[in-house]
Amino acid sequence: MSKSEITKIAQKTHAASQELSAIKTTTKNKILKEIASALIKNKKDIMKVNAKDVNAAKKKGLNAALIDRLVLDEKRIKGMRDAVMDVAKLPDPVGEITEKRKKGKLTIEKMRIPLGVICMIYESRPNVTVDAATLCFKSGNAVILRGGSEAFHSNRYLVSLIQAVLKKNKLSPHIVSMVPQTDRKAMIDLLKLDQFIELVIPRGGEGLMKFIGEHTRIPVIKHDKGVCSIFIDESAPLKNAIEIVINAKVQRPGVCNALESLYVHQKVACKVLPDLCAQLESHGVEIRGDDKVRKTVKDVKKVKEKEFGEEYLDLILSIKVVKDVNDAINNIQKYSSRHTESILTKNKKNAALNVSLLNSSCVMVNTSTRFNDGGELGLGAEIGIATTKLHAYGPMGLKELTTTKFVVNSNYSVRT
Amino acid sequence: MSKSEITKIAQKTHAASQELSAIKTTTKNKILKEIASALIKNKKDIMKVNAKDVNAAKKKGLNAALIDRLVLDEKRIKGMRDAVMDVAKLPDPVGEITEKRKKGKLTIEKMRIPLGVICMIYESRPNVTVDAATLCFKSGNAVILRGGSEAFHSNRYLVSLIQAVLKKNKLSPHIVSMVPQTDRKAMIDLLKLDQFIELVIPRGGEGLMKFIGEHTRIPVIKHDKGVCSIFIDESAPLKNAIEIVINAKVQRPGVCNALESLYVHQKVACKVLPDLCAQLESHGVEIRGDDKVRKTVKDVKKVKEKEFGEEYLDLILSIKVVKDVNDAINNIQKYSSRHTESILTKNKKNAALNVSLLNSSCVMVNTSTRFNDGGELGLGAEIGIATTKLHAYGPMGLKELTTTKFVVNSNYSVRT
Repeated sequence: MSKSEITKIAQKTHAASQELSAIKTTTKNKILKEIASALIKNKKDIMKVNAKDVNAAKKKGLNAALIDRLVLDEKRIKGMRDAVMDVAKLPDPVGEITEKRKKGKLTIEKMRIPLGVICMIYESRPNVTVDAATLCFKSGNAVILRGGSEAFHSNRYLVSLIQAVLKKNKLSPHIVSMVPQTDRKAMIDLLKLDQFIELVIPRGGEGLMKFIGEHTRIPVIKHDKGVCSIFIDESAPLKNAIEIVINAKVQRPGVCNALESLYVHQKVACKVLPDLCAQLESHGVEIRGDDKVRKTVKDVKKVKEKEFGEEYLDLILSIKVVKDVNDAINNIQKYSSRHTESILTKNKKNAALNVSLLNSSCVMVNTSTRFNDGGELGLGAEIGIATTKLHAYGPMGLKELTTTKFVVNSNYSVRT
Repeated sequence: MSKSEITKIAQKTHAASQELSAIKTTTKNKILKEIASALIKNKKDIMKVNAKDVNAAKKKGLNAALIDRLVLDEKRIKGMRDAVMDVAKLPDPVGEITEKRKKGKLTIEKMRIPLGVICMIYESRPNVTVDAATLCFKSGNAVILRGGSEAFHSNRYLVSLIQAVLKKNKLSPHIVSMVPQTDRKAMIDLLKLDQFIELVIPRGGEGLMKFIGEHTRIPVIKHDKGVCSIFIDESAPLKNAIEIVINAKVQRPGVCNALESLYVHQKVACKVLPDLCAQLESHGVEIRGDDKVRKTVKDVKKVKEKEFGEEYLDLILSIKVVKDVNDAINNIQKYSSRHTESILTKNKKNAALNVSLLNSSCVMVNTSTRFNDGGELGLGAEIGIATTKLHAYGPMGLKELTTTKFVVNSNYSVRT
């Protein structure tokens, strides 16, 4: 695909964003409901197209967790439909007055407005295609989608369903655009188009983040890897601690809020580790521990120090025994990707220390890392978890896809 | 200055930012008051050092408005002192809980936290040195200052006063760092240090913005040029309209919220322009008009079309006669730098049209553009006016220099 073809897509999406800004909330919601219906009506075709992607991924030897992210079965399609219906039900952020005050003779308001055109670059999860398209649409933003190559056919089909609904409603299909190619050359061309694109949201690993940073002047909100941690403090109730670690690691290992690194207070290591590791192994988790872990539990693979900064996205867990809460915090500060950290403790002082010293997007006490998610935290739906501190740190929902402008009224006031 | 020296400054500032995050609000306010006193105590020396910069600028032939921005007289020094005292009085944003909700078994809070290290690159206005240093300090951010070359001696002296107060309070002087060189090579080295710097805030013209975008992967919040506009609609009361235009253009022509481009409805051009132009000229304003302006008012210089996108920062005003409000909006959308636009009208429909279609950082009705300012809009104080839509669009005060993280508490909740 030539550079001029990519430019044309961005240009058309930019024009569509201006068309979109004039659409009423009721119309937006009607269209969202039609998209939801289209997903169910075409579920068989979705699964057929998706099977092509899944089979190719299996042949390529992708690991089970990555294939899990790729699969669209009936349950997942219903999940996508439900997510779209949820977006339809959420209040429209555009036009909302978020602040209003009088100052002297001025009436000062802040009003929510769309960002414009968002370029969304994401991993091979076809449900993200629908989430991103509908969240951008509801928040008044046109979007250029560029999903992972393994999900290409699924994504293309899902976008065609959405575009058909837009066309049926006499709107530009370019409100939801897709780059019909997944090579990096096309991505570089896209990243140069700062005259049309207001924001780039990349979801993925370190390599992708670096690549994007090197090739664009457009503002970027990174959705970097999730090297999420849990620290089991001395006072943590062991039964609860084991339950939370199992939940955080096993429930859905392929997603960004899954647990990757566990730190255990030295005073409870002997008590908690044998049981915990046995249970993790019964769930198929491979444990990689430091020397102290390996002294306590037999047949544990030795962890490399740098693995504490690694996002496995798989049934693997690195474990380190630490001296105390400060030692845990130092380790987390060193290796964390600023996504989610949880402390398990009865000690309020240690909990407060953790909360105040760790500036990850979500800092938890006695809670599974799996809860760092837009839906679970009450945002309604999310486009991802931002690890860039600017604009929206953590889950990004509808509001986080907008900005605000000042609106000032007075009766011909001049500044003195 | 070598790259490794620049790196050392950034490294020390990064370390200082962690020291700063542990300082209590009362200590921060005490230090701010001491900085305010130091400005007054050393006012004679400030003016002496500043005179060196001003004389050099005059020799270089800088225009009057630019020299005005550079000068520190007794009144301006008192202004700086007052600004620092205002920052001391403002509530500390760090640690503030901005949202709190219960969802299921979770208690979810959003807590304000500093960004970390901010790199501030700005024009030759020494008062910005003090504003930026104290706003960053109060919001818990360490700062690396890089001001314009014309203000170098003034800036260096002001920073030395601030650092002396920090040292006296046994704090790292690198909480407020300064790059002791103003060449672009040093700036490029600085812009590469994304491991230490969280945010770059550049204030200045298009050239600077482009230069910075090309040399950094650090998030940037631009404070781009202010090509501010006013549209005099058919129904605007002419006496008020003239008053507002004079205020917006003349009161302080060297700042970013000064008026640069005026649009006048064709039906009132003949009525308003002769009087308006006469008054503007009596204030020393050079008028550059399109053909319709020149038909109405004698001896007006012909404006080049592209000048409607130009920030004069001087007593020059470009004027165009337009067909109606839509024509005005189209022109503004084409040439605006997304800073401030004001419509003067009695017609509520046209006012609403303007407010909804123009997405500049501040959209005004019957108000002088000079009010787009953190102090005037109730933010207390500002570090500048952001023209990047992300994070903080418009004036950036203390809150806008922070971000929020999620803090989640529960009683050992797992996700099902």
